[in-house]
Amino acid sequence: MSDRTRQAQPPPGETGMALADVDTPALMIDLDAFERNLARMADTLKDRPVRLRAHSKTHKSPLIGAKQVALGAVGVCCQKVSEAEIMVAGGVSNVLVSNEVIGARKLERLAALAGDAEWLGLCIDSDEGLAQASAAASGAGTALHALVEIDIGAGRCGVAPGEPALRLARAIADAPGLVFAGLQAYHGSAQHIRDHDGRRQAIDAAIKMTRQTVGLLERNGLTCAIVGGAGTGTFEMEAASGVYTELQAGSYIFMDADYARNRAKGGGPFDSFEHALFVYATVMSVPGEGTAVVDAGHKALSVDSGMPEPFAMAGVTYQGPSDEHGVLKTGGSNKPPALGDKILLIPGHCDPTVNLHDWYICVRGMGTPQAHVEDIWPVTARGAYF
Amino acid sequence: MSDRTRQAQPPPGETGMALADVDTPALMIDLDAFERNLARMADTLKDRPVRLRAHSKTHKSPLIGAKQVALGAVGVCCQKVSEAEIMVAGGVSNVLVSNEVIGARKLERLAALAGDAEWLGLCIDSDEGLAQASAAASGAGTALHALVEIDIGAGRCGVAPGEPALRLARAIADAPGLVFAGLQAYHGSAQHIRDHDGRRQAIDAAIKMTRQTVGLLERNGLTCAIVGGAGTGTFEMEAASGVYTELQAGSYIFMDADYARNRAKGGGPFDSFEHALFVYATVMSVPGEGTAVVDAGHKALSVDSGMPEPFAMAGVTYQGPSDEHGVLKTGGSNKPPALGDKILLIPGHCDPTVNLHDWYICVRGMGTPQAHVEDIWPVTARGAYF
Repeated sequence: MSDRTRQAQPPPGETGMALADVDTPALMIDLDAFERNLARMADTLKDRPVRLRAHSKTHKSPLIGAKQVALGAVGVCCQKVSEAEIMVAGGVSNVLVSNEVIGARKLERLAALAGDAEWLGLCIDSDEGLAQASAAASGAGTALHALVEIDIGAGRCGVAPGEPALRLARAIADAPGLVFAGLQAYHGSAQHIRDHDGRRQAIDAAIKMTRQTVGLLERNGLTCAIVGGAGTGTFEMEAASGVYTELQAGSYIFMDADYARNRAKGGGPFDSFEHALFVYATVMSVPGEGTAVVDAGHKALSVDSGMPEPFAMAGVTYQGPSDEHGVLKTGGSNKPPALGDKILLIPGHCDPTVNLHDWYICVRGMGTPQAHVEDIWPVTARGAYF
Repeated sequence: MSDRTRQAQPPPGETGMALADVDTPALMIDLDAFERNLARMADTLKDRPVRLRAHSKTHKSPLIGAKQVALGAVGVCCQKVSEAEIMVAGGVSNVLVSNEVIGARKLERLAALAGDAEWLGLCIDSDEGLAQASAAASGAGTALHALVEIDIGAGRCGVAPGEPALRLARAIADAPGLVFAGLQAYHGSAQHIRDHDGRRQAIDAAIKMTRQTVGLLERNGLTCAIVGGAGTGTFEMEAASGVYTELQAGSYIFMDADYARNRAKGGGPFDSFEHALFVYATVMSVPGEGTAVVDAGHKALSVDSGMPEPFAMAGVTYQGPSDEHGVLKTGGSNKPPALGDKILLIPGHCDPTVNLHDWYICVRGMGTPQAHVEDIWPVTARGAYF
């Protein structure tokens, strides 16, 4: 096998097809809800001193990235160099790799990409990472914008706020091929704290550490053009902070079941955005009363953040996924699904669910008798990991 | 977007490359261990009245399926029609879809495929499924072999053993386009019962129900040419039963971390097979003592059956995956991994992990200084869900 190319699978539907004719399992966008989500985020951030840098790891699609930019986003985040290559090739050319990049092969590709992009950045949290990025950019004769990642509570990557960040920022500013661009200050785990006060408390602490670090750097002559972070669960807090300049929310376009388990201020539903992403599935077995088995399991849905939720099916829960099966418990329903019925599942976690599929089946008029496939979009960066 | 084709991502390595030069994350086969696993299963079943019908949902590769057939397997199982199409196109043409197939579009494809295959079968557990399969085969002028699936304790699909199975078997035998071929009797959940006695108990019960049903059918003039089931966790029990004729083990070729958590008879390690599948990952951040972050998270590894295990790294555990990160806790190690180190992770669950990747990087001489990429195989049926 010397051939380094192969085809992805064909899509499970055709443009123009009625919703009910789409084969299953299928990854589906409710275009009406999706467009409302895009507009709602743009409206929320209009006339505020902070812009969206939408996280494309959610959608892996330059086509969707371009829609976000058209509505005011400064550009996108990626998590991987290969994703950044796909975004730039697809016309979205202001790209931050919101992650550390280690290894000569990856950094050479990133440095080369900087020659094609309007703006290209990465995050750095080590001297070794700095040296590697500097060498690659110098070698390519390009410039890489570099943010110092600080750990403000997430416990993943990043140096400590304050002096360690200052030391690294200075080294970046002095390094050939690198441009010091600011701070990466993302609190991932805070996004999924269920109650609003808990999220508020975590983000208040994060904002405080970030503000102090920005101040320390400024007093030392290092201006943070970008202070980036935030996700769908907390972006309004970072937006109001006066410190953050770029918000990295991604899931707001699709709104998964996990985010819907968050509570808003006062305890009400966290419903700023609508569910716009579904996995369409068929009931393939009804082995007995109270149980139905659908054809969507681990290979069609990611359950890392909890089970998917059957959409608009009161009294029905999804349990016990295996590779290609999901068991529905239907005992609480007065209209349990029948063999052959097609149902919509809201993924527990949209990002890794999207990454399982090669295509988006884009439906217009979901929930109406006219529901049909308006378009089919590739999940262009599916499998782009390195 | 009317184009229904797109390329998968390129592989993260090249044939001939030294192991250490492969980019990460990469799905990797230790060819030596893999070939020993293939041979060990073939040896175990040699001269026994039962044959392997290897489950291809593990590998999604007709190239691997053909190796299994060359070593004595009667053919393969698939879980989906699209997988069966890929196996037959790849030269593996004795294929059982070990699953119910519901929906005219899927069944028309399956019935058409029967014209190209040496032998093609599916499972049926409902009158409606029977009627749909019969109509499709009759329409195509082909024959589909049909197994009645019975639920012998797994609690997923299948009719009850005994009379309900007899009723459905009779209906299949009478249906145009269908050939009654026997029983599907797979106990999925028993595979992962940790202690040997627990697995023994579950499979003894399953064998008893299966034997009674086979007897009932035979007394009614219905011969079960195939009695299929078993997985890597229990196949020696079904092999010795005198009832099963085909074993559907899949994971034995790769042996994941979940199966390694099983105990053998007497409580010792369940080590009939070796770990032969890995995700190769790079340490991209060392944020503090006792912690290292690798570039393989939910999008490179499936954690539905538990976390991956760092290979040959005593005192190091993998925790807290996010989309593209895995946090290693290294405090128990006297040689913790350093920034830039590449490590091997044993996936928690091999089937959905394989399904995340487009390519196998096949390494010869793993564990030696000569370790290198001998071949690159496509995960041909990745994303083949419908």
